[in-house]
Amino acid sequence: MDETKVVLSDHEIPRQWYNIQADLPTPLPPPLHPGTGQPVGPEDLAPIFPMNIIAQDVSQERWIDIPDEVLGKYLLWRPSPLYRARNFEKLLGCPVKIYFKHEGLSPAGSHKPNAAIPMAYYNREFGIKRLTTETGAGQWGSALAMACQMFGLACRVYMVRVSFEQKPYRRMLMNTWGAECIPSPSSLTVSGRDFLAAHPDSPGSLGVAISEAVEDAVTSENTRYSLGSVLNHVLMYQTIIGLEAEKQLEKIGVYPDVVLGCAGGGSNFAGVSFPFVRDKIHGKDVRIVAAEPTSCPSITRAPYAYDFGDLARKTPLLAMHTLGHDFVPAPIHAGGLRYHGMAPLVSHVVRLGLAEARAYNQLETFDAGVKWARSEGYVPAPETNHVIAAVVDEARRAKEEGKEKVILFNWSGHGLIDLTAYDAYLSGKLTQYELPEEEIERAIRTTSAFPKP
Amino acid sequence: MDETKVVLSDHEIPRQWYNIQADLPTPLPPPLHPGTGQPVGPEDLAPIFPMNIIAQDVSQERWIDIPDEVLGKYLLWRPSPLYRARNFEKLLGCPVKIYFKHEGLSPAGSHKPNAAIPMAYYNREFGIKRLTTETGAGQWGSALAMACQMFGLACRVYMVRVSFEQKPYRRMLMNTWGAECIPSPSSLTVSGRDFLAAHPDSPGSLGVAISEAVEDAVTSENTRYSLGSVLNHVLMYQTIIGLEAEKQLEKIGVYPDVVLGCAGGGSNFAGVSFPFVRDKIHGKDVRIVAAEPTSCPSITRAPYAYDFGDLARKTPLLAMHTLGHDFVPAPIHAGGLRYHGMAPLVSHVVRLGLAEARAYNQLETFDAGVKWARSEGYVPAPETNHVIAAVVDEARRAKEEGKEKVILFNWSGHGLIDLTAYDAYLSGKLTQYELPEEEIERAIRTTSAFPKP
Repeated sequence: MDETKVVLSDHEIPRQWYNIQADLPTPLPPPLHPGTGQPVGPEDLAPIFPMNIIAQDVSQERWIDIPDEVLGKYLLWRPSPLYRARNFEKLLGCPVKIYFKHEGLSPAGSHKPNAAIPMAYYNREFGIKRLTTETGAGQWGSALAMACQMFGLACRVYMVRVSFEQKPYRRMLMNTWGAECIPSPSSLTVSGRDFLAAHPDSPGSLGVAISEAVEDAVTSENTRYSLGSVLNHVLMYQTIIGLEAEKQLEKIGVYPDVVLGCAGGGSNFAGVSFPFVRDKIHGKDVRIVAAEPTSCPSITRAPYAYDFGDLARKTPLLAMHTLGHDFVPAPIHAGGLRYHGMAPLVSHVVRLGLAEARAYNQLETFDAGVKWARSEGYVPAPETNHVIAAVVDEARRAKEEGKEKVILFNWSGHGLIDLTAYDAYLSGKLTQYELPEEEIERAIRTTSAFPKP
Repeated sequence: MDETKVVLSDHEIPRQWYNIQADLPTPLPPPLHPGTGQPVGPEDLAPIFPMNIIAQDVSQERWIDIPDEVLGKYLLWRPSPLYRARNFEKLLGCPVKIYFKHEGLSPAGSHKPNAAIPMAYYNREFGIKRLTTETGAGQWGSALAMACQMFGLACRVYMVRVSFEQKPYRRMLMNTWGAECIPSPSSLTVSGRDFLAAHPDSPGSLGVAISEAVEDAVTSENTRYSLGSVLNHVLMYQTIIGLEAEKQLEKIGVYPDVVLGCAGGGSNFAGVSFPFVRDKIHGKDVRIVAAEPTSCPSITRAPYAYDFGDLARKTPLLAMHTLGHDFVPAPIHAGGLRYHGMAPLVSHVVRLGLAEARAYNQLETFDAGVKWARSEGYVPAPETNHVIAAVVDEARRAKEEGKEKVILFNWSGHGLIDLTAYDAYLSGKLTQYELPEEEIERAIRTTSAFPKP
């Protein structure tokens, strides 16, 4: 009997998050005020986020203590097991050992609660009574719904309309955890009403949903906004994944040749990889790979520029790979990973040559996902299928090169609430889709008016 | 930071299942041939089950080795963590420590793969190429679909029509794992066609779905039938749950005052409790409690009698608590736990005074389940909500009695694919339902023609 996983006991859980800003060879370009073109100060963000979170977002400390109450909630499913994918290895027949962090065991079924729980905690500590957010495929919205319930906060989630309709179980899950879930664009906000007037049949986008959630937060009492990815503090909360993986690999005396994650806004990718990027900065020979969809290829094809985080231009300008804040992803795409921009920290790390990215088409991602489900049992989320497709690539490359390789990746979540996408794939209803070149040209035009990072 | 769970490493997984037949103070009444009224022999069952499984069903050995290949698949999610439900304890405010086995972390989201995997394995070992089965809410059908895929067997699942329609994600999950899923009653079998002719609008029942699956198995080449609960060998495979729990509780120096499980056919209840029933037989002071629905109250209200396992009378007669093989559960009931009979071993153990049972109405079970989800995060399956309601009862009783108690229960599965039931509950569409007395009288009439156990 070969062992399949490395488990840590509760008392072995890491007590600090890792802040990569302390180790960057060149600092991250700061967020800019769109009016002045100057770096924003904490006071500019105070209507949107509580000050304790803002302080973490700009912190240059390497290690940030995880509060005991947050650890207590993490222990509901953390430390997550580090698995070896023996059956998938056998299926591929390549000279690789494949290890993965199983983030699908959380109550919400993905890595998202790693960030939702500290966010709800810090908002409650700051005296906030209600959070708003947006969600695409619904992983983030459900995670925040659960976290708010745990810390006694009210919660409203603006959900991209096409996902709201395609994935009714996500709305039901948020309701079960006591949150409101509103299809976006909605008539509840000025941003939503303006967008609906111009595009009455819009499937929605994360850009407009963010505008609605931010507007709701800044115009309502005792309310703040939460973003489920992209921002520095969110990425830092997710580093618990990589820090646990480091401990677990150490226990079995293994170090990875390549570390992979799928990337939409960038948080689960950063979560698994930043502790290893740190090693790379300090000279370690390790490759770091992000997997994104060909329908929303921000790192692989979009310009690196200052751009807004949302459609209604309510956020500061962020330096990132961006398809333009006015990007509306094709509804043809079945999974999440639809955000127009990539986290500034992830974009920066790629610019510094510390990480690379590859894009995968949805047919090849579902092919990889079904192979996974039929060998390893667990059905991956459509987002996770992207990184599995990249793992298949890495394994084949190892075979071609005749080299043995150790692969570590983040299995970011399960697909049990996304089965309609599998149904569409298995019945031949999903199609190939590559973002047309005109969309990249539009992104360059959209961002050309802003300062260059 | 208080610890929340006890984990076992892969090498600590139990290597044997526990067979309670070796410890019963009086033996289990044998299955009878309906024609002769005599105990059935292995050859009578050979068209339905492979001989290696039949041998296990009647074995009197206390410990049965778990094959290495089965252990290898178990390790995908086993040993399952033993949790302490600290948040739920706090919510209840009663003098209890609540421990539970988290069986919702398996790829199928429930305890069912514990039995599906050995069943697929033993059938493959016996040279079988295809399995048929039935499923109610879908937990069993999806588990067998996964197991068959893992061992290279074809799989067809007859799913009770009302569940097939209410729970489309279950069908999609079975398809993702490569199985066929057919709504029952279907026109593919004589049993299905006969039933449809008499009841064209029937919501279906487990009784008729079993008839279809058995008929398919005995009339198709290289095909056998698999049952997901009720039978001795199925209950034995599930004892891995209780055996792990014993080890985990020993590690923290705790022994339970009461052990609980929800009971439909009886397999998860037996799985968690039979190792503790063994202790009770040997004099230990521990209470064993089964929680069933008031809509399908076999242990608490139905006669103990010989009856068929299916509607079309294709099975041997089994000695059990039974609502009659012609029972059709009310479609008003949102969860699983709809089988007309209770496992012979569970029925026998209750008759011997080694276990007790209580029935819960669906409104109180969903009330308990929503409280659980909002404190502990994980959303329980509707079936699991029954045992949570029983845990609430036990906790309140401990408070009334002013006694401290340790509770152990089996959290049999998550409800992420059953969210429509939560949606119905939260929007006030679920109603109270108690099985009318006439149904009990009918069960007594139905079984009066058979021998008395």
